[in-house]
Amino acid sequence: MRITLLAGGIGGARFTRGLLHHVATSGLDADITVVVNTGDDIRMFGLQLCPDLDSIMYTLGGGISEERGWGREDETFTVMGELGKYGVEPTWFGLGDRDLATHIVRTQMLGAGYPLSAVTEALCARWQPGVTLLPMSDDRLETHVVVDGDEPGTRRALHFQEWWVRHRASLPALAFPLVGVDVAKPGPGVLEAISGADVVLLPPSNPVVSVGTILQVAGVRDALRATAAPVVGVSPIVGGAPVRGMADACLSAIGVDTTAEAVARHYGPRVAAVPVGADGGGILDGWLVDDATDSDVPGRLASTGIASRAVPLMMTDVVATAAICAAALALAEDLRR
Amino acid sequence: MRITLLAGGIGGARFTRGLLHHVATSGLDADITVVVNTGDDIRMFGLQLCPDLDSIMYTLGGGISEERGWGREDETFTVMGELGKYGVEPTWFGLGDRDLATHIVRTQMLGAGYPLSAVTEALCARWQPGVTLLPMSDDRLETHVVVDGDEPGTRRALHFQEWWVRHRASLPALAFPLVGVDVAKPGPGVLEAISGADVVLLPPSNPVVSVGTILQVAGVRDALRATAAPVVGVSPIVGGAPVRGMADACLSAIGVDTTAEAVARHYGPRVAAVPVGADGGGILDGWLVDDATDSDVPGRLASTGIASRAVPLMMTDVVATAAICAAALALAEDLRR
Repeated sequence: MRITLLAGGIGGARFTRGLLHHVATSGLDADITVVVNTGDDIRMFGLQLCPDLDSIMYTLGGGISEERGWGREDETFTVMGELGKYGVEPTWFGLGDRDLATHIVRTQMLGAGYPLSAVTEALCARWQPGVTLLPMSDDRLETHVVVDGDEPGTRRALHFQEWWVRHRASLPALAFPLVGVDVAKPGPGVLEAISGADVVLLPPSNPVVSVGTILQVAGVRDALRATAAPVVGVSPIVGGAPVRGMADACLSAIGVDTTAEAVARHYGPRVAAVPVGADGGGILDGWLVDDATDSDVPGRLASTGIASRAVPLMMTDVVATAAICAAALALAEDLRR
Repeated sequence: MRITLLAGGIGGARFTRGLLHHVATSGLDADITVVVNTGDDIRMFGLQLCPDLDSIMYTLGGGISEERGWGREDETFTVMGELGKYGVEPTWFGLGDRDLATHIVRTQMLGAGYPLSAVTEALCARWQPGVTLLPMSDDRLETHVVVDGDEPGTRRALHFQEWWVRHRASLPALAFPLVGVDVAKPGPGVLEAISGADVVLLPPSNPVVSVGTILQVAGVRDALRATAAPVVGVSPIVGGAPVRGMADACLSAIGVDTTAEAVARHYGPRVAAVPVGADGGGILDGWLVDDATDSDVPGRLASTGIASRAVPLMMTDVVATAAICAAALALAEDLRR
């Protein structure tokens, strides 16, 4: 079974780890590809950082800091401290010594002319994540955030990382332009991974700046809408709040309520329920919501054409996460019939 | 008094520290400029390393590892270990985490378009070395080493660092081409520092791959030969062996004996003794040798036009080094009369 995921960082990483656990324990013959958001990527200190790719790679490869959810375990921050003593900005980004080696290798390979997809493959040769990681694009794409400027009536844009990490998403976001999207091409294998999948899963990643960013890459939305595979998403919103991260600050910027239902409606159904078989304009066939807090959502979504189920949705550990993945695959299986 | 030095790494660094000590304790009003060899520079892991500049900067700024003589004190090697786990070469170069920050800042600034001289000035804003450090050139120059190839009758070239650090200078060197020297210009202020000096000192740096490299930069040799300042060198050879490092392997490659006398003759006198006042074709006015092992050298050099003195020449500590510097300045003073 070919399973393709469209994922951001921490949520996508943990979901994929649960999926691998489910595959291993169920004996499912699965070939998993994860199309990863690269809109969070940033060049810092002359080094190219790919936070989402690294979070997934480290999580699946056993190198992640479980406590932080990002970066390496047993991490030290010696280089960052020294950079600070040189007065080099930024100082608000936590760049560990172990982590830094990844960025050094990546930057050197990019400088030598290798595309990001090839670099990712090379890095994964060490980490053996057990899945194929595909950057959404080999082209440089950066999510920026438009916020109010200091002077009334003005606006300014900052890199997503600065908004997210430095300002903790506290500056009201007005828009999330994806810089470079007008010329960027999908990464090698990305569209094929979607069109050739048996199931497409959307992990509980940020619907705006993770999955939403991947959806902006040329051809991705069309591939999702055209694939023969069922597309099943897992709500990142449980009981009206993000499970992790600050997705609410992103959703409000695009006028979407922070509810499991609103996010499903934002993604939209691939096939509308009424009239039967009409184009729903969206990307979803199925949608998992949390049974403890959002059990009314499946009924509310029934009229949209999105088949929704309520199951325990908290990724408290690998086993619980594997159960969510199993439920998503079961829903997909039912949708295929 | 304007004092200009032409220096390599460890020897140059320790000599300069001694000079600063002498200046501080004698109350001399001195403005010290060190023209530094950059032929050892190497791009590694995509980062630009300048070993000699850093050795001097760290030594004078209080950040050097006294034990190793290069790199930072309280150093860790976490990043290097991680790079090794990625299978990235080279693994034979000791690149510490603290040290790495310097290379990251440098590489980022170079990438932004700043010349090496400006980068060096910026780095020194942190370290406050108490002297002006001038790279011999802002252009990329690399000392390579020609050695015998694996097949009989063939030759190959490797970077000086690989020859020096990886092979411990054990491969017989046939030549030391300075790659880029045909187009490189002297760094800003380099020629002026020589022509405008009151004294020019050659620390006991490697005569071939440190001082000898600086001498190859366009205009440097002419500036040394034309300056009104006396030029006084300190022998890096004591009792027929290098005080530190593997200068003998370099000297033999260019056909110079590993003796204090032979190195002086290799540098040559600025003014030949016989006939009086004739152009000696060289760069030296004065030469300090070790009184315990080479007390016969001054007499042997008398006929060449190089004024040589034998003094204690071991830089065992800062005070002993300061005494050598004082002797060099005293010889220069006598030569000026």
